[in-house]
Amino acid sequence: MGSTPYLRLDEAILQRNIEAMARVAATAGVALRPHAKTHKSPEVARRQLAAGAVGLTVATIGEAEVFADAGCTDLFIAYPLWVDSAAATRLRALGDRVRLAAGCDSVEAAANLIGLPLEVLVEIDSGHHRTGVVPADAGPLAARIADLGVRVRGVFTFPGHSYSPDGRHAAAVDEATALATAAEAMARAGVPADVVSGGSTPSAGFVEQGVLTELRPGVSVFGDAQQVELGTIGFEDVALTVVATVVSHAHGRVVTDAGSKALGADRAPWASGFGRVLDRPDARVVALSEHHATIEWPGALPPLGSRVQLVPNHVCTTVNLADEYHLATGGTWPVAARGRNG
Amino acid sequence: MGSTPYLRLDEAILQRNIEAMARVAATAGVALRPHAKTHKSPEVARRQLAAGAVGLTVATIGEAEVFADAGCTDLFIAYPLWVDSAAATRLRALGDRVRLAAGCDSVEAAANLIGLPLEVLVEIDSGHHRTGVVPADAGPLAARIADLGVRVRGVFTFPGHSYSPDGRHAAAVDEATALATAAEAMARAGVPADVVSGGSTPSAGFVEQGVLTELRPGVSVFGDAQQVELGTIGFEDVALTVVATVVSHAHGRVVTDAGSKALGADRAPWASGFGRVLDRPDARVVALSEHHATIEWPGALPPLGSRVQLVPNHVCTTVNLADEYHLATGGTWPVAARGRNG
Repeated sequence: MGSTPYLRLDEAILQRNIEAMARVAATAGVALRPHAKTHKSPEVARRQLAAGAVGLTVATIGEAEVFADAGCTDLFIAYPLWVDSAAATRLRALGDRVRLAAGCDSVEAAANLIGLPLEVLVEIDSGHHRTGVVPADAGPLAARIADLGVRVRGVFTFPGHSYSPDGRHAAAVDEATALATAAEAMARAGVPADVVSGGSTPSAGFVEQGVLTELRPGVSVFGDAQQVELGTIGFEDVALTVVATVVSHAHGRVVTDAGSKALGADRAPWASGFGRVLDRPDARVVALSEHHATIEWPGALPPLGSRVQLVPNHVCTTVNLADEYHLATGGTWPVAARGRNG
Repeated sequence: MGSTPYLRLDEAILQRNIEAMARVAATAGVALRPHAKTHKSPEVARRQLAAGAVGLTVATIGEAEVFADAGCTDLFIAYPLWVDSAAATRLRALGDRVRLAAGCDSVEAAANLIGLPLEVLVEIDSGHHRTGVVPADAGPLAARIADLGVRVRGVFTFPGHSYSPDGRHAAAVDEATALATAAEAMARAGVPADVVSGGSTPSAGFVEQGVLTELRPGVSVFGDAQQVELGTIGFEDVALTVVATVVSHAHGRVVTDAGSKALGADRAPWASGFGRVLDRPDARVVALSEHHATIEWPGALPPLGSRVQLVPNHVCTTVNLADEYHLATGGTWPVAARGRNG
């Protein structure tokens, strides 16, 4: 299989995860627009679209270009873009060949979008406190954006505070409440929201009927240790692992050759470590260097030279470190949008 | 300058940092073998060698291949390699064209090196508790490796516990003590250590005379927020920054388009945040998402659309996320060894 570390993708679990999220969206009566920042892969995107996704969400213009090149015809850049002249040129080329939307949380940013072939979704804050205006301000902001001649398609939010133990349901309620307030404010301002978009992987299972029209989960396609520890999924739902070689037994622990440059360094305050070990729920990654994961491993250690499958904490950042997926059934897929940060 | 985020490299500061570390090594009377995992750049390596470095340190076989291709003739893979048949083929090709050494902390791993064109440095633990044997065991281990017919060049350690406030000097003392113990044990075992190699950026300034023969600092070439907060350097010594655009003023804070996929997510327990802002020591990166850095910024906020220079916490992981350096004086250099994890 070549040298470790590498990304191993189980296509059967991947397909099951894609279909499970499609059912969640169908049951809730909402459109599904998965976030492609997680996988950065046209092959994965094609499977999501085949399972009923209406289009893709991306984070950057560079990601949008990759998925437009791959044949995706409906893209939402869920990010409050600041568009300079170079970005405007790229968005013009994109909007000429795909149905395009972008996020916006200020009139100043909207002014850069005048004349571009895209629509806007106003971003609101539903409790994550990152970007976005407070829900009641979505009406006045949408009106000012529309006054510029920029078409407003709707409203969106990312309930990132769903990444918290026991916080998933509450975040979904916050999200629905905030989006309902924003949609009402926009209707009152004469700019009705045709699209009301939300959703994260932890909160998607709690989506409230009747408010959202669209869900944008990313991580659910692969799963990761954060989702396992939040209780969103089980280890059996993890489609992507990092295969690593045991290189040392120093201090009675297992040290592997996959470190932060292969796994990523994300560690939420509530995480039990820097990742998990597939099929060994009792093992813990207690330290991480660039090329070392140090694992406390109860019982007999796996021999030097043996391979283990590590489950990264946050799979979106893991995938962005690799150039390709190695399929469990053989062959590779490129991480086509790796590094497309701008 | 193209779209943000991107790596900005100030060549004048880079050159000053290279020369400063060359002086540290010369003053201590030790050879300098900088760790190229930090920069992954042949252009930077050439400047280090021109300033007197005896060779390069790398972390992986893939990095060694890149620097051998670039003309470096003396490489030490400072890692306890587990060599399977594919790795043996690559090491044979490497050893045929460069002077090659690799780390080792077990007889089992050494057995895979029999017949390969490389020498071994025994790895010892000097307090970081990652890989490596306890110092007194270096003698017996070196003897067993030599008995296999594998040539032992010396001993090495990484005093990673120097990454701690007020811990730099103590870690340098630990390192010298451990290396002295190991070298004595090896001499007693009849396998004298020609090379006694240590050194990290935080501890390099405290290197004890008379024990070490070689230093392997990595980060010092660029500097980063961790080194600033440890007191190793000042902001004026930071050669590499991530240029980001201010995209939102949500909640009265600055949000930029450089997040964890551009900066890296490393955050030591003692770090003040997820990175720093050049020329604004009072600003703090209080939250990080993949494409958002949220900054608490006292006083008037920089306008939407303006650009700021972020100083990443740990520059080694930052560089590995980018495909090129943008030089302050114009032009680009490739991050030639990006992603070479295996």
